[in-house]
Amino acid sequence: MSADIAVDEARLWQSLMDMGEVGALPHGGCCRAALSVEDQAGRDLFVRWCREAGCTIAVDQVGNIYARRAGRDAARPAVATGSHLDTQPHGGKFDGIYGVLAGLEVVRALNDANVGTEAPIDVIVWTNEEGVRFSPPLAGSSAFAGVAEVANIHAAVTLDGTTVRQDLESTGYLGKERPGERKLDCFVEAHIEQGPILEAEGKTIGIVTQIQGIRWLKVTVTGMDSHAGTTPMNRRRDALLGAAEMVTTLNRIAREQDEWARLTNGRFEVEPNSGATIPGRVVFNCDLRHPDATTLEALDGRMQAAMRTIAGRGGLEIDVQRVIDKPPVHFAGELVDTVRDAARRCGYASMDMLSGAGHDAMNVARVAPTGMIFVPCKDGLSHNEAESATPAHLAAGARTLLHTLVARARRVS
Amino acid sequence: MSADIAVDEARLWQSLMDMGEVGALPHGGCCRAALSVEDQAGRDLFVRWCREAGCTIAVDQVGNIYARRAGRDAARPAVATGSHLDTQPHGGKFDGIYGVLAGLEVVRALNDANVGTEAPIDVIVWTNEEGVRFSPPLAGSSAFAGVAEVANIHAAVTLDGTTVRQDLESTGYLGKERPGERKLDCFVEAHIEQGPILEAEGKTIGIVTQIQGIRWLKVTVTGMDSHAGTTPMNRRRDALLGAAEMVTTLNRIAREQDEWARLTNGRFEVEPNSGATIPGRVVFNCDLRHPDATTLEALDGRMQAAMRTIAGRGGLEIDVQRVIDKPPVHFAGELVDTVRDAARRCGYASMDMLSGAGHDAMNVARVAPTGMIFVPCKDGLSHNEAESATPAHLAAGARTLLHTLVARARRVS
Repeated sequence: MSADIAVDEARLWQSLMDMGEVGALPHGGCCRAALSVEDQAGRDLFVRWCREAGCTIAVDQVGNIYARRAGRDAARPAVATGSHLDTQPHGGKFDGIYGVLAGLEVVRALNDANVGTEAPIDVIVWTNEEGVRFSPPLAGSSAFAGVAEVANIHAAVTLDGTTVRQDLESTGYLGKERPGERKLDCFVEAHIEQGPILEAEGKTIGIVTQIQGIRWLKVTVTGMDSHAGTTPMNRRRDALLGAAEMVTTLNRIAREQDEWARLTNGRFEVEPNSGATIPGRVVFNCDLRHPDATTLEALDGRMQAAMRTIAGRGGLEIDVQRVIDKPPVHFAGELVDTVRDAARRCGYASMDMLSGAGHDAMNVARVAPTGMIFVPCKDGLSHNEAESATPAHLAAGARTLLHTLVARARRVS
Repeated sequence: MSADIAVDEARLWQSLMDMGEVGALPHGGCCRAALSVEDQAGRDLFVRWCREAGCTIAVDQVGNIYARRAGRDAARPAVATGSHLDTQPHGGKFDGIYGVLAGLEVVRALNDANVGTEAPIDVIVWTNEEGVRFSPPLAGSSAFAGVAEVANIHAAVTLDGTTVRQDLESTGYLGKERPGERKLDCFVEAHIEQGPILEAEGKTIGIVTQIQGIRWLKVTVTGMDSHAGTTPMNRRRDALLGAAEMVTTLNRIAREQDEWARLTNGRFEVEPNSGATIPGRVVFNCDLRHPDATTLEALDGRMQAAMRTIAGRGGLEIDVQRVIDKPPVHFAGELVDTVRDAARRCGYASMDMLSGAGHDAMNVARVAPTGMIFVPCKDGLSHNEAESATPAHLAAGARTLLHTLVARARRVS
């Protein structure tokens, strides 16, 4: 127990508010697209704060930032935490940023208490988690885990027409370290829940045991453009009508499955999208999630079969491409236990839960024991300027993180 | 009976093919947006042909072209025909163009047979029927019928950023005649059906008795953007799911009504249209048509009620704006009888039918006895480069038009 090490709730909150001024939007949110000038300013501010807290800074070839608080044994793999500083176009102040600044608050709290650890502690900023300005999302952690090539990330073209390599150079974040070269003892990511469950259950800390599996299906439904006024209803091959039946049916299948299944049609585009023309084509995305790999596979099969039946009935052609397929990630039991123990010792009401969203932790789990700590956010809202969380909840997450990291890094003074 | 006046099938077809070279597209269609340089070239070609056929040309303040074959009595109102030369962006060779060139073929056939008429015959090109490059559609005939102001049409801004008045001047089609100043004895518009009925019924000529009424509803469904992975199915306010249920329900209501009802959701836009976000807003168009005004009103009411019920069930807000409301147009019985008689005397299999599409004739019917003649088109396809019709069907329509116009204009030699 490290009851003498005090997380400073006001300081953590002030840092979040100060970072929120960088790329601030009119309704309380932020726009810091990865490697934009706003993201550069956010990174520079973080680096300055870390240097003031006595950390050394390293940057790798894809711009991941590692702020290290030295341990007594420099040879030991670092106990790591962190998240991302980039945001959605109308993002909030907390998604990602909280995980980075909670890590910084742990360092500051250890400094204040003059407490040392055996292993170094790294606070990591992963590059381009959101994937808004260029692909892939979770780019930095993907390179770190070896699931994306550095050369491919460098060659990616941003919405501004630059390459990522050019932006890494121009923003000053093209480092020499090879991603993944650095060994980690573990990685613990603190994050707002981005969902409504903790709030609804009245819990302060979510012990994340796994991230659910996710599949994206790109569905193309093809009928025949024809004239809205002259084509009898029974002679139509209306791609929108078929796609609308698919959307309602897929939602029903997900709801009938169990409380864990999630089905979202977020992207949905109609052609020719003209008032007086029966749509000849609809392209839409199915985002399908479930924590159990077998159930996910079964849902995928049932949904594809249902869509083909609807297409056949409407005289429509259908093409289904699987564009994302990420199996469920189960976090390391030892680390989950450590997080659970830390929350319990701090006296917080907690619950085990799964993450509905993807996170950098998903990638890091491939190369190091990994866990996550969730705190409640208002109305479960995220990817929205109105995203909000209380100073008390945020500090509770940081305290849980502190005790987890100190348990792994071993207190020596 | 004017059996000695011969429509020349090959000449009509060749004129259609020659006009199809103006603004030709790679797959057999045309792009001649109203008052574009392509439309100007098409108009110039038509005017040259008409002058070669001995017509005098007048142009009014909105660019409507009147090509007159003189009658014995210059004081009599003209017996008029025509349609439009402008096309959809990926339009065919026949929609509109056929009605203009069938009128020209009537003039040429009368010239060949050296036949005179009491009343003059006008072949009219109405400006901007399609409404692609600027609004309103049916602009020229709207001005003629007094339902649109010349000043408003002049002030309209095109997709190229010019005003319509500038384009009328630069293309040489800003005339002095006030639209509607010219009195018409009648107006008969020949057109491809743009639907599949004549083809399916094996008929050559459609006697159009009316144009169905049309309403456009702009529907905005508002829910709440939220995260696809973290938001449980039962906590969502998914605007796309609600809109999809509306589309399927509206289609069912239309199909249950009768064989005449038409419901099309052609324009459908989803926000934020992002793969991992539950859509918070959908805006879509309802194009609702029926030949009976009372039924159209009842359908509108039933559909709006159904949409409100679906919105309420899904925790969604809904806003419905009526953006177009055109009552059914019934053509003049005397003229419908004349067309029917002409088709019968030519020996063509014909049927009474209604027009599912809007046409310039819809406007002209406000100020003169008006009728339409339909001919079959392949697969009912229109607003499509693949739009097609046979030379024989097109000539049959022109013959029916000829006998109709001669009956009205009175043969004198």
